[in-house]
Amino acid sequence: MSSAEQRASELGIAIPDYADPPYGERYGSMRAFHRVGDLVFLSGMTPENRAGERFHTGRVGVEIGVDEARAAARMTAANVLGMIRYALGSLDAVKSLASSTYYVRTGPGFDDVHLVGEGALELFVEVFGRDAGRAPNVGVGVATLSHAHCFELQLILEAHPRA
Amino acid sequence: MSSAEQRASELGIAIPDYADPPYGERYGSMRAFHRVGDLVFLSGMTPENRAGERFHTGRVGVEIGVDEARAAARMTAANVLGMIRYALGSLDAVKSLASSTYYVRTGPGFDDVHLVGEGALELFVEVFGRDAGRAPNVGVGVATLSHAHCFELQLILEAHPRA
Amino acid sequence: MSSAEQRASELGIAIPDYADPPYGERYGSMRAFHRVGDLVFLSGMTPENRAGERFHTGRVGVEIGVDEARAAARMTAANVLGMIRYALGSLDAVKSLASSTYYVRTGPGFDDVHLVGEGALELFVEVFGRDAGRAPNVGVGVATLSHAHCFELQLILEAHPRA
Repeated sequence: MSSAEQRASELGIAIPDYADPPYGERYGSMRAFHRVGDLVFLSGMTPENRAGERFHTGRVGVEIGVDEARAAARMTAANVLGMIRYALGSLDAVKSLASSTYYVRTGPGFDDVHLVGEGALELFVEVFGRDAGRAPNVGVGVATLSHAHCFELQLILEAHPRA
Repeated sequence: MSSAEQRASELGIAIPDYADPPYGERYGSMRAFHRVGDLVFLSGMTPENRAGERFHTGRVGVEIGVDEARAAARMTAANVLGMIRYALGSLDAVKSLASSTYYVRTGPGFDDVHLVGEGALELFVEVFGRDAGRAPNVGVGVATLSHAHCFELQLILEAHPRA
Repeated sequence: MSSAEQRASELGIAIPDYADPPYGERYGSMRAFHRVGDLVFLSGMTPENRAGERFHTGRVGVEIGVDEARAAARMTAANVLGMIRYALGSLDAVKSLASSTYYVRTGPGFDDVHLVGEGALELFVEVFGRDAGRAPNVGVGVATLSHAHCFELQLILEAHPRA
């Protein structure tokens, strides 16, 4: 069985490097992650590249469609992978996802938030496999998100115990 | 003092069996629960029965009223009990609720999300008692939820240590 | 280096006493906090004083402006400090913030939820310092909150191990 790092490489996922420059340093009041025992809390990730460009901002069902929002969700999941590397050094340090909460910015009449969120969750299963890559989750349709992002995902994961 | 299982039985709560068929298997990318040490993360539960029927979909204050939403919240809490049994084998394996976040789908002008959420939280107190059955909690009024549900509850609990 | 209690005192922050009368006792179904190992889950805090007066209720961008919402967020953070004292006895028992989720009640056209949230997060950095006082966080713009509050913050923290 291949490792999560091998699978991410085979899938050709574009995973950002959050170590250089260190993620979050331009925000004085937030931190990228925090580990307590084997639990690791990650900061909410969005569909934004390291240059600060935001993809598909807007409300799903109004300014953007489901396909665009789903692509933004998948990009967000790739960003989460980058954050995991930054937090733990390697995707292979993940024992399992523990909890996932995602937010979709929705306009009136759009209720299929799960269709958007699956764009992110599927990437986790592709990389970590069916057991470790699935998390208990909640998807919520909200009025707005910071910087008008259409999607944000907040992950808690279980790391392998430190050697 | 009676046990949580005894109280649930005395109250005559209809608790679904999520073991048969196993919950969540039709969703390829989510998991019912995850345990790390004594912490157990449950997937968000909704007012939906095992046949997939949804109760009182819609926005509180528009398509449905407070009483219907409150009933949906109580049904959701009963579903959470079923999920706890599925995760831990018995309600008596719960040491305490640890954290509860609930979401109410609201229409314009409705702000009493706590009146809805109490429908769920009260059931936990009835079953687990005043100490173990209360959790730190947040209630949020949101634009929408997956499948247009009117209520969703995300629970973290503390289990008794494994024997 | 001064302690968190010393800094809070120097800053002259008005921190409510949640021990007398005990917080949350008028709510039959919620609890102020719950500790599991070194993790402490706090109940969602709002800009409300101990007399039950709510500050700056309404939607940001409609009934209230950013400055008012930001002041409400800072007041909420001060309330969180009071809750930490109630949970742990002293602010100096905090090893680090672990996870922060905040909700801003927004009206149409307002997307700068991070500007509001920073009002709370900055106070944590002032009191706990740059390392311990920053948390992985998510900010969400929502339709409404209990009692029409404009802001609510849900914190998980890591306490120093018990002596």
